[in-house]
Amino acid sequence: MKMNIETPALVIDYGKTIRNIKEMQALANKSGKRLRPHAKTHKIPYLAHLQINEGAVGICAQKVSEAEVFAKSGINDILISNEVLGEKKIRKIFELINLGNKISVAVDSHIGIRELETIGKEYSNYVEVLVDVDVGMNRCGVNVNDNNSLEKIVDSLKNSPHVLFKGFMGYDGHTANIKDLKLRAEAVEKGYQDILKIKRLFEKKGLHADIVSVGGTPSASLWALKEEINELQPGTYVFYDIHQVELGVTDIDHISAYVLSQVISRAEDRVVLDVGYKGITIEQGIYPTVVSHKWLAVKSMSEEHTVLKGSPLPDYEEKVQLIPYHVCPTIDLWDEAILVNNDKVITSLKIEARGKKL
Amino acid sequence: MKMNIETPALVIDYGKTIRNIKEMQALANKSGKRLRPHAKTHKIPYLAHLQINEGAVGICAQKVSEAEVFAKSGINDILISNEVLGEKKIRKIFELINLGNKISVAVDSHIGIRELETIGKEYSNYVEVLVDVDVGMNRCGVNVNDNNSLEKIVDSLKNSPHVLFKGFMGYDGHTANIKDLKLRAEAVEKGYQDILKIKRLFEKKGLHADIVSVGGTPSASLWALKEEINELQPGTYVFYDIHQVELGVTDIDHISAYVLSQVISRAEDRVVLDVGYKGITIEQGIYPTVVSHKWLAVKSMSEEHTVLKGSPLPDYEEKVQLIPYHVCPTIDLWDEAILVNNDKVITSLKIEARGKKL
Repeated sequence: MKMNIETPALVIDYGKTIRNIKEMQALANKSGKRLRPHAKTHKIPYLAHLQINEGAVGICAQKVSEAEVFAKSGINDILISNEVLGEKKIRKIFELINLGNKISVAVDSHIGIRELETIGKEYSNYVEVLVDVDVGMNRCGVNVNDNNSLEKIVDSLKNSPHVLFKGFMGYDGHTANIKDLKLRAEAVEKGYQDILKIKRLFEKKGLHADIVSVGGTPSASLWALKEEINELQPGTYVFYDIHQVELGVTDIDHISAYVLSQVISRAEDRVVLDVGYKGITIEQGIYPTVVSHKWLAVKSMSEEHTVLKGSPLPDYEEKVQLIPYHVCPTIDLWDEAILVNNDKVITSLKIEARGKKL
Repeated sequence: MKMNIETPALVIDYGKTIRNIKEMQALANKSGKRLRPHAKTHKIPYLAHLQINEGAVGICAQKVSEAEVFAKSGINDILISNEVLGEKKIRKIFELINLGNKISVAVDSHIGIRELETIGKEYSNYVEVLVDVDVGMNRCGVNVNDNNSLEKIVDSLKNSPHVLFKGFMGYDGHTANIKDLKLRAEAVEKGYQDILKIKRLFEKKGLHADIVSVGGTPSASLWALKEEINELQPGTYVFYDIHQVELGVTDIDHISAYVLSQVISRAEDRVVLDVGYKGITIEQGIYPTVVSHKWLAVKSMSEEHTVLKGSPLPDYEEKVQLIPYHVCPTIDLWDEAILVNNDKVITSLKIEARGKKL
């Protein structure tokens, strides 16, 4: 740790990040799929532009307000991969569309479609939508067996000239908890079959999908094998994290974001760092991993402190690198990140889309 | 929920908050203790000023950068209740002192004192310090049995004209995990005895404490009974949370901050809200509590979604109020809060000291 970085800091390694971006793009290219990275992981326009420069067709955003930040940064093909209800949010979508951006949005109910139609009519413009399919996560998305909802969605799409059906999306967050690759592949296949059934139903009704957009980082390579999938939307791969290493999706050397801290207190059995869970999250009860001092482990954390145990213990002001189990919520805690390359500080990057809730 | 608030939103109820502030001030006044609320809970200058208007002597901050925000807001008596190491951070402390602010800081090693002395000399000014005592939390603070460190601290204080010994502080975060009040009182008494032993040792060496500043919200009323304690530093009481209710410290009606969300997706067995753990934290594995629909419980959470189960399920766009188990890290996720009073929206408050890491 030769760099002179004031602690605590969120640090992004450019070299590793661009390698991650290129490798995922290569996977998509090789399998003939479009890549639409999920920007909720980094929330940084600069990194979204790197992804697009390498071949991504656009990005996903999870909130309207996130989409606005990226649109203003010059990215004009954005899928809001989430259900949007409420006048103010939908108006914002049409305002972005009226500025020439291609903003598409997920829908999983005729209620959502009706709201888009009502406001779209007022704006004399249309919004492209992807019907969100519950591929097994049991969160958002219409269920393959919910004929009543599916019928209402088809009907409202056919009767909504300001809402343009473009295809389907599905997010399989549940497969990120399946460590066994064979079982994960089975879960993906099951979700795929559900999408196909709904796709066939829509085709019968005259609604043909241009886009079927799915997958997260742990399942991207599995969805890439499916013929009728044509777009992948992983996010975490831009930085990776310990969870992805545990899943066998990558190795620790690919992890490109970490939190840098220093020792501020020492005792016989411990040292205390100047960052806690307001700077690096605990996920599913799992503490961050100490990568600069592999023999040390986290003993406890509080808001602004992390207590480490192990031997030998680092000295006062010694720098310690921590990697989170899940990187997305950790990035979201910071207003800016330090971008480094070849162990040199290059610049700081504002995490522009964080804290935007609309 | 009659108010027209765009979801998701962090909402602070003025009436309940000012009642919490007055009640804690009354407890301190009644026991003849000074109150120095910990501003790390709210990070909002306006609320710190309310606390001072009601009688608080100043505030605690946990980072130098937080202290800077509050100092710039016009609060000039700030204890940084944390160990500060590193030139840039210490320079900032002396710059704030040179602007006429009374900034004091915790120390638990002669290393920390030496750094303060070196830079204080350069600024031709002094900083007041409180020696941080490990009162049983096993985080920062010098241990009562660590004679070697205690001796070095005494020596360096005596030989550091730019570091003014003012007394002691201790934070007993461990007592917040003791639900039984009698056992919690015993843990506080044990910590108190450790402080007294160190206090006596310092007195023998000619170092007399003006200030002994301790305690969090769950233990404030217990420390208030101790004769040689003269300052209390609770933070959470400004809003309270489910954890404090479980500890028997308050009741649910006193909780004055919540997250407002709406239903964006429905299925037979669940609804999905438009906020997840990027807007309301999971603490110790414990999900938020649904207060607007007490018959509903959180089934799962992800970054931007919370899935609720129970019956009857709310409709699309129905507003749902969530209260976190631990309020401090939830506040820290937001850039601003909506201040309401008597069910009317009054203004929005910027959470100015969040995202400041120095």
